[in-house]
Amino acid sequence: MKHISLLGATGSIGTQTLDVIRKHSEEFKIEAMSVGRNIELALKQVHEFSPAILSVQTKEDYEKLLNEVPSHTKVVYGKEGLLEVATNEKAEVLVNAVIGSLGLEPTLAAIKEGKTIAIANKETLVTAGHIVTKAAKDAEVPLLPVDSEHSAIFQALNGESVMEVERLILTASGGSFRDLTREELKGVTVEEALNHPNWSMGAKITIDSATMMNKGLEVIEARWLFDIPYEKIDVVLHKESIIHSMVEYIDGSVLAQLGTPDMRVPIQYALTYPKRLSSVSKERLNLWELGSLHFSKLDMERYRCMALAYEAGRIGGTMPTVLNAANEMAVASFLDNKLSFLEIEEKIEIALERHSVINQPTLEEIIAVDNETRAFIHSSIK
Amino acid sequence: MKHISLLGATGSIGTQTLDVIRKHSEEFKIEAMSVGRNIELALKQVHEFSPAILSVQTKEDYEKLLNEVPSHTKVVYGKEGLLEVATNEKAEVLVNAVIGSLGLEPTLAAIKEGKTIAIANKETLVTAGHIVTKAAKDAEVPLLPVDSEHSAIFQALNGESVMEVERLILTASGGSFRDLTREELKGVTVEEALNHPNWSMGAKITIDSATMMNKGLEVIEARWLFDIPYEKIDVVLHKESIIHSMVEYIDGSVLAQLGTPDMRVPIQYALTYPKRLSSVSKERLNLWELGSLHFSKLDMERYRCMALAYEAGRIGGTMPTVLNAANEMAVASFLDNKLSFLEIEEKIEIALERHSVINQPTLEEIIAVDNETRAFIHSSIK
Repeated sequence: MKHISLLGATGSIGTQTLDVIRKHSEEFKIEAMSVGRNIELALKQVHEFSPAILSVQTKEDYEKLLNEVPSHTKVVYGKEGLLEVATNEKAEVLVNAVIGSLGLEPTLAAIKEGKTIAIANKETLVTAGHIVTKAAKDAEVPLLPVDSEHSAIFQALNGESVMEVERLILTASGGSFRDLTREELKGVTVEEALNHPNWSMGAKITIDSATMMNKGLEVIEARWLFDIPYEKIDVVLHKESIIHSMVEYIDGSVLAQLGTPDMRVPIQYALTYPKRLSSVSKERLNLWELGSLHFSKLDMERYRCMALAYEAGRIGGTMPTVLNAANEMAVASFLDNKLSFLEIEEKIEIALERHSVINQPTLEEIIAVDNETRAFIHSSIK
Repeated sequence: MKHISLLGATGSIGTQTLDVIRKHSEEFKIEAMSVGRNIELALKQVHEFSPAILSVQTKEDYEKLLNEVPSHTKVVYGKEGLLEVATNEKAEVLVNAVIGSLGLEPTLAAIKEGKTIAIANKETLVTAGHIVTKAAKDAEVPLLPVDSEHSAIFQALNGESVMEVERLILTASGGSFRDLTREELKGVTVEEALNHPNWSMGAKITIDSATMMNKGLEVIEARWLFDIPYEKIDVVLHKESIIHSMVEYIDGSVLAQLGTPDMRVPIQYALTYPKRLSSVSKERLNLWELGSLHFSKLDMERYRCMALAYEAGRIGGTMPTVLNAANEMAVASFLDNKLSFLEIEEKIEIALERHSVINQPTLEEIIAVDNETRAFIHSSIK
């Protein structure tokens, strides 16, 4: 039995993590979980999974919930609450499925406590990859990817030497607007952007998928997770999202992981690794039913956010923090109808241009740059 | 430095094995090699690779060569010659790249001597899988696949538990006649059959690829190499031969090995395993250059040889020996213009039908059934 702490239980990855745990209840037990503002769903989850700790975002929700949860569940809140969930002493694994840079500090705290990290929160590695990977290495704690692309690479590597890797090839569906030209992107709406052809995900990541910033962040994440330089990370457009990513070795062999697009597969693998358990879904991949798989080259001018992400990644230091914070703010403004789709990348580019990079930043410097970037984007929009 | 014995040096796999060894001459040394009747090429190879032993097929060739090879190369011949190559005491690895059931006895002899077996000769496993795999297990000798499909599965398994495998999925190009109906197959010529769209291989295997018997033999080989029942081995038509085969796990994940169709990649992997070395070819797989990959369901009525192979495999015992021997004879007769293309499968079917299976046959029984089947097909044609 593996005991699990889950950050972000009511989000897309969180609920799918609970699907996996429900299916394999003899293997996994939720010890502690955090939620955002979806208190109604959180209560249902608490009644079903009986965690010892539930962390909510605000004091208000905390007070509201005190009398509604079963007596064996302790309610906590805020940043301290997140840390309490992440470091719960009975849990061996922390699933970090929160959105945004919120997940960074709890992850570092869990690493210090020697917990295995199943990481779905890419901002943690994007903004502080050098700190998190060093901490994990020092504590001899595995960082297991939950993202489908990184899980694919992790499975295709399967313990082989990184020295023998020629390149990582991430696949990208191209998102909701993959068939539109830049000219056509000018008038797109929030509703259109939220209509992803393959994956069912949260709103922020669906927009990131349409701008391809999602793939840009994944490239940076891959650089840290697998300790591979950017020159050795390629992206190929693959609209069916069946090949989830690939590893090309120096001998010309390419190992790929494939499957129907279902996030519960990589989530489950992170929980069961190095074992595998039966699938939550009954759906199987039969390639003859699909008939064909398509691939095309990524156009960095069409997908400006990809180019910005590679650039920020190569410069390093605090640049990826700026990229990520500016993106989060710009996407939120787009979802709020305060920015047009193409203004997302414009805002990010301006934020990157005005930033003076700090190399090897400390956690405090990263948090300061993150806040400063958010304030800048906020003021530039309002 | 790995020391290698090579059976079948002048054949398609043999010459490509020597390409790999030439490219990595600091890693590999040919200690002993056997050839068929291509004495001219054999002499060139001996001068280049300086083996301590060269085995030729006939006494006539042996006498012809005695004064032509360098003094440090000992010439031997016939069945004893093959055994001397296979059991050469300096060699750690035997590459078995002969065609037909000829490779069986030398392989068993090499296993007894504790040598790692790189196996390109599928008939060895098809006719005596239960004997060869048991011998390898008892001697704790690895059996490393050289066939691109089995190498793909071996790489996609990469040490994972066979208990967690849902099924193996072999890909099949469909061979030279994949776009023809059964009606259209009636009039095809030897020249048309030899024109394989993707792979450059020997004549026998190219015909086997057109009848799909090649894939049928591979299914039987996979059953033995990976200890997987036939119900868990599927075949999918994939005309580009880019995905070389796949493993589907119980969690829904599919691991695949891809590459440009180049036999030197799986040959090299068998020689370097568990390491990888740089590729002989400079060609890289860029999926966007291909644009798309296609898949379709295998029609067992269209490809009658596939159905016969599954049937012979499931019955087991001496049935696969009959399948293989009848196929070898029928293909030779087709290449000799003595049988039409569709008569290949007819002959095999008749041979299977008249055979009374012997379960758990000994090596002697296998050899007797092999000879008897060949004699039957021979007499039925002349």
